Amino acid sequence: MVVLDQRVLPGATEHLKIGECAQLVEAIATLAVRGAPALGVAGAFGVVLAMDEAARKGWTEAERDAAIDGIRDARPTAVNLAWGVERVRPLVAAGRDAVLAAARELAEADTAANRELSRLAADWLLERFGDRPLRALTHCNAGVLATSGWGTALGVLRELAARDRLEHVHVDETRPLLQGSRLTAYELAQEGIAHSVQVDGAAASTIVRGLVDFAVVGADRIAANGDVANKVGTLGVALACHVSGLPLVVAAPWSTVDLETATGEDIEIEERPGDEVVVIGGERFAPEVSQGFNPAFDVTPARFVSLIATERGLVEPSAGTRPTDLA
Amino acid sequence: MVVLDQRVLPGATEHLKIGECAQLVEAIATLAVRGAPALGVAGAFGVVLAMDEAARKGWTEAERDAAIDGIRDARPTAVNLAWGVERVRPLVAAGRDAVLAAARELAEADTAANRELSRLAADWLLERFGDRPLRALTHCNAGVLATSGWGTALGVLRELAARDRLEHVHVDETRPLLQGSRLTAYELAQEGIAHSVQVDGAAASTIVRGLVDFAVVGADRIAANGDVANKVGTLGVALACHVSGLPLVVAAPWSTVDLETATGEDIEIEERPGDEVVVIGGERFAPEVSQGFNPAFDVTPARFVSLIATERGLVEPSAGTRPTDLA
Repeated sequence: MVVLDQRVLPGATEHLKIGECAQLVEAIATLAVRGAPALGVAGAFGVVLAMDEAARKGWTEAERDAAIDGIRDARPTAVNLAWGVERVRPLVAAGRDAVLAAARELAEADTAANRELSRLAADWLLERFGDRPLRALTHCNAGVLATSGWGTALGVLRELAARDRLEHVHVDETRPLLQGSRLTAYELAQEGIAHSVQVDGAAASTIVRGLVDFAVVGADRIAANGDVANKVGTLGVALACHVSGLPLVVAAPWSTVDLETATGEDIEIEERPGDEVVVIGGERFAPEVSQGFNPAFDVTPARFVSLIATERGLVEPSAGTRPTDLA
Repeated sequence: MVVLDQRVLPGATEHLKIGECAQLVEAIATLAVRGAPALGVAGAFGVVLAMDEAARKGWTEAERDAAIDGIRDARPTAVNLAWGVERVRPLVAAGRDAVLAAARELAEADTAANRELSRLAADWLLERFGDRPLRALTHCNAGVLATSGWGTALGVLRELAARDRLEHVHVDETRPLLQGSRLTAYELAQEGIAHSVQVDGAAASTIVRGLVDFAVVGADRIAANGDVANKVGTLGVALACHVSGLPLVVAAPWSTVDLETATGEDIEIEERPGDEVVVIGGERFAPEVSQGFNPAFDVTPARFVSLIATERGLVEPSAGTRPTDLA
């Protein structure tokens, strides 16, 4: 299994060769592999990895299953990781080829889903705003790097650009790990889409001042009632859209919807090491005694979410529709 | 004139010796000297500096006045800088001693004002919450470093701590220049006040989840109607407080109130170099083609401001009172 190491982009393009489950868990935990849909695909291929390692090392079934559980639980908030693992796990008894084929199918389906939800979201936006070039804000990275192909939030932007209806993108840098400036800006630059990078604290005023028409983000877990867990900072974007009457669009494949989770209160928010906040590029900025508080995600209540675009169709939580309507 | 270089704190404690107006303008523009009330004091002493330089170099009155104008205009948003300059400028004709005495008086008055407004804000908070230890969020640095002495937002926190009514402070790191992690955490650490540092994107969820009781910030300019310009990111803090029913307290000396500015729309928002966003600690994180968008301040509309605490008294803009009521 070979993955692009997202920790060193855009400065360096390095690939990690992953031959053992422990390496995959490490790559997921340290965000070398990240992005909810990409984690789903990684989870599915991780089951193949576990089967290979089990065969090589003569593991018992219980040992193999524990390794698969370890992959599934490497990060708690994005539901796609567990979903990808559980989608292919029933095929383990049918053998490696069956699991591998299912994992490949899942990756292809993810790309197709991204394309379809991007088209639906772009239609919705252009119908709302009239057929004109739009200015967008996005937070974190939900592009090719976060998915198996096209992208979710960035997929919507690519779709608008392909229709010549995208004027400019304000990219939140997305502290602490700067997925916005490192990854989203990198993808937009490669696509030739006009953009600027701003600190996360600028999101509210960019929206309230009317410098953008809408905001679009991905999601790590969507509860049955339409509450959305996504990268920390998304809630602030949503609140600014809410008071400004601008739409907040959440773009995510149906695999991100977790009908088992009733509301956002039931979503576990991963707390990552505090040093990710107070140490940047190897340099510590806060005093030694000052601890970082580092929740990786936040939950945006459904009433602040204008649209959830999935490949199954559109949901408008702030207008009262729910993901369960599409189930 | 000797000032502490705030750009290198807390890693290094260095003082800048400033002998010429151009050096002072440079120190202000690059944020070696920063914080609205501190800029007011720097402006006042800057007039003495200009008089000394004029005497030394044989400047004409017009040349001296142009140098004073240059100091006044070194940064556009914080009204205190211009206020400090203009407060002592009428005394130039009366000679250096008169100007110097006025500048010293202004610095002492700023500290006294900080103490008084801190007391008033603490009284207001403890009356509202009942007499119990509170948990606070603050953004940027409005402490000793930003003022001539006690601090404004941080002054309120110090006052609560002195009364044993402060449990914990969530400090927004405050990108791009990290005044929160570098300066506020440093001051809180020196005071022995429990705190943690978080990314600015975490502010909304920290507030909405109820991890704090209130937020407190300083201000760079307060319009006559109660709109508040402060460090970019303040608006997001205010919106989260608004939807959560928690108070947003703005702590600022009366010198920050600009009755000549009718509303926030009339406040010029300084845009600083984009590289402050995309370059951190000398390392560029975004692709070369990606420009930074770097508004240094935002404007929080009066309806989202629960309290403005000044030494003249308290204003509750969201409840309909206005700074003009205290004029």
